[in-house]
Amino acid sequence: MSARSVEDHHVHVSGLLAALQTLAPSALPVVEALGSIVAADVNSPVDLPLFRNSQMDGYAVDAESVRTVPVTLTVRGVLAAGSGKPPKHLTGSAFRIMTGAPIPEGADAVIPVEDTTNHSEHTVTIERGRAAGEYVRERGSDITAGMLLVRSGTRLEPRHIAALAAVGAATVSVYTPPRVAIITTGAELKSAGTQLEPGEIYDSNGPALATLARANGADVVSVARSTDDPDMFRELLSYATSVADLVFTSGGVSMGDFEVVKETLGPLGAQFGHVAMQPGGPQGTAVVNEVPILSFPGNPVSTMISFEVFARGDIRHAAGLPPIASQRHALTAPLRSIPGKRQFLRARRSNDGVELVSGAGSHLVAAMAWADVLLDIPADVTELDAGTLVDVIPLSTWY
Amino acid sequence: MSARSVEDHHVHVSGLLAALQTLAPSALPVVEALGSIVAADVNSPVDLPLFRNSQMDGYAVDAESVRTVPVTLTVRGVLAAGSGKPPKHLTGSAFRIMTGAPIPEGADAVIPVEDTTNHSEHTVTIERGRAAGEYVRERGSDITAGMLLVRSGTRLEPRHIAALAAVGAATVSVYTPPRVAIITTGAELKSAGTQLEPGEIYDSNGPALATLARANGADVVSVARSTDDPDMFRELLSYATSVADLVFTSGGVSMGDFEVVKETLGPLGAQFGHVAMQPGGPQGTAVVNEVPILSFPGNPVSTMISFEVFARGDIRHAAGLPPIASQRHALTAPLRSIPGKRQFLRARRSNDGVELVSGAGSHLVAAMAWADVLLDIPADVTELDAGTLVDVIPLSTWY
Repeated sequence: MSARSVEDHHVHVSGLLAALQTLAPSALPVVEALGSIVAADVNSPVDLPLFRNSQMDGYAVDAESVRTVPVTLTVRGVLAAGSGKPPKHLTGSAFRIMTGAPIPEGADAVIPVEDTTNHSEHTVTIERGRAAGEYVRERGSDITAGMLLVRSGTRLEPRHIAALAAVGAATVSVYTPPRVAIITTGAELKSAGTQLEPGEIYDSNGPALATLARANGADVVSVARSTDDPDMFRELLSYATSVADLVFTSGGVSMGDFEVVKETLGPLGAQFGHVAMQPGGPQGTAVVNEVPILSFPGNPVSTMISFEVFARGDIRHAAGLPPIASQRHALTAPLRSIPGKRQFLRARRSNDGVELVSGAGSHLVAAMAWADVLLDIPADVTELDAGTLVDVIPLSTWY
Repeated sequence: MSARSVEDHHVHVSGLLAALQTLAPSALPVVEALGSIVAADVNSPVDLPLFRNSQMDGYAVDAESVRTVPVTLTVRGVLAAGSGKPPKHLTGSAFRIMTGAPIPEGADAVIPVEDTTNHSEHTVTIERGRAAGEYVRERGSDITAGMLLVRSGTRLEPRHIAALAAVGAATVSVYTPPRVAIITTGAELKSAGTQLEPGEIYDSNGPALATLARANGADVVSVARSTDDPDMFRELLSYATSVADLVFTSGGVSMGDFEVVKETLGPLGAQFGHVAMQPGGPQGTAVVNEVPILSFPGNPVSTMISFEVFARGDIRHAAGLPPIASQRHALTAPLRSIPGKRQFLRARRSNDGVELVSGAGSHLVAAMAWADVLLDIPADVTELDAGTLVDVIPLSTWY
């Protein structure tokens, strides 16, 4: 492939990632499902309340018997929540009843304890009557069995977890996060916290790709770093493709003499070439052990923007997350763009519009941290005036 | 305490939770800090780039020597990224150089390989000259040592993680999530997935409080369920106060005969009483082993709303999360509210305003799942017309 458009390469990548979109849903324990996306409508298996029960601490009566007050009734016993199936109600008597306890069959109202006097073990005086149904929670008054409880696509919030728990659901069917593995390459890369030798730099692509994948709903199952040794890269790749649904590599794809990704994946049928974009031009794709591999360039900003442009949407879709919608904002200052390449420029939103935070350089990783959007400038645009509305891709994710 | 206002009780609770606001920050490994809140400004400890390096695969030259082209230069060697400190540049010669490799001292431009011909091990012909600085990334051109890299209060997104990794930060100081323990009570409660006996219900308060705490930035360290046996409750409380900064209980606080929380905590100096609100009236507070205990009523909706009203703000603040701002929306239908109680009604937002999803009943947990806001109706309001603007508390959290 050579100088493919961003749009064409995106179609190509989405084709490779098609299998991600058909991962079987997972049954997750309800209490662990906070933030997960429900994969199928959940209908309530039961009525809620499960049985007719008292809304108050008081006395279960029949409304007819307390029509005229004060009236003193025989108390036949005490009904606590959880104390089992109650005896039948006898007209003109009462049960002491606690909140949540089942209403005896034949009783139809609860007199709050505050409206009673002369309590003893065997009698109570009712000072205020109540109509049938008062302070009684009818079976199914919240939801009835078979009704929709939580809709497919819902991102589970605490109140959904509570409702699922209340109907007795032990597990809930949620979208399965696609499993992602990451291999960064480059002899010059060292881990944060270690001492650098001359010419070495800290690897930020591993942490960037791992957190980008995770923030967009993936399960990161492996992060590794390869030297420029093809044997080492091949070994890491073999492991990655055995545990992941999708593998990202960074580095080793451009025009240099030591391009380990290109040299290793090339003979395996990979495609390498240039996409008409900046940053992120050199791109590679392959399928190894039936697992798609996306090979991004090694510059940190190129890698991050490659992820945003080519992978984020498909990963989010596979994970059941909503797409990140493009926005339109006005430029606060005029802008020049190189012809023939779609540019993704780092910028910040303000009340006045969007303004660039730095130049186009693909090494400006600190500046990328200050940005909150990418300006998406079409390949055929070279100059834009201040005030022009441009497409803007939000960087912040919905974690 | 008796019939305290919501406002007064909130002040009382915030006082009890004051110690949460002074938890020492934690040093978290950068790659594990996605979504955490930075507790102090991070200044870059180094310049980025760390050293002057090549932006392209090509040839490092001095611009002066390639002013007239074509020109054939001696190639003195190959500089790969990570290949150590380069030799000095000699005017009129070149080094083959890879992206990211250090520029030899005395060279000041890089000629992309595409602009060269006649490559051999020892010579190269430059077909297009470049000005000094072209394709050279200057040391510190992204950020210089001492400059602000990530601001305190930032919720760490992948691009911040990348920047922290790039400057070699192994850990980052973040807000420490307050540790929360939960004890639900009630003889009638069983776990989801088990068979119920008559009069029993599924416990939704444990899952609700655990996920509410987690969704608002807390670390849930214990979730347990007690029967109405005071010895059991005391034992669970002893454990909870040994591992948590804050303990929630649900149930056992109202006017019934079997109020295990009230009976156990009362002698330990707890306050129990009524707050002028619906749902959620019966509330208790205590301090045991110097750990604050908030005792919520047992109805699921009462428990959830108690958390939203009294605990969410303080927990979020302790965790470094921004407050959830109240909104104002118009009622789609007229509304009645009981006098003397601040009501928190479940509702949904739409383009037309907010509409109730159910009645006021504190058992309506399925209806609560369908809501996305609480209407916050002041205690002295009894009737509101359609179209009236009301205060609205968003339920969805920023997880």
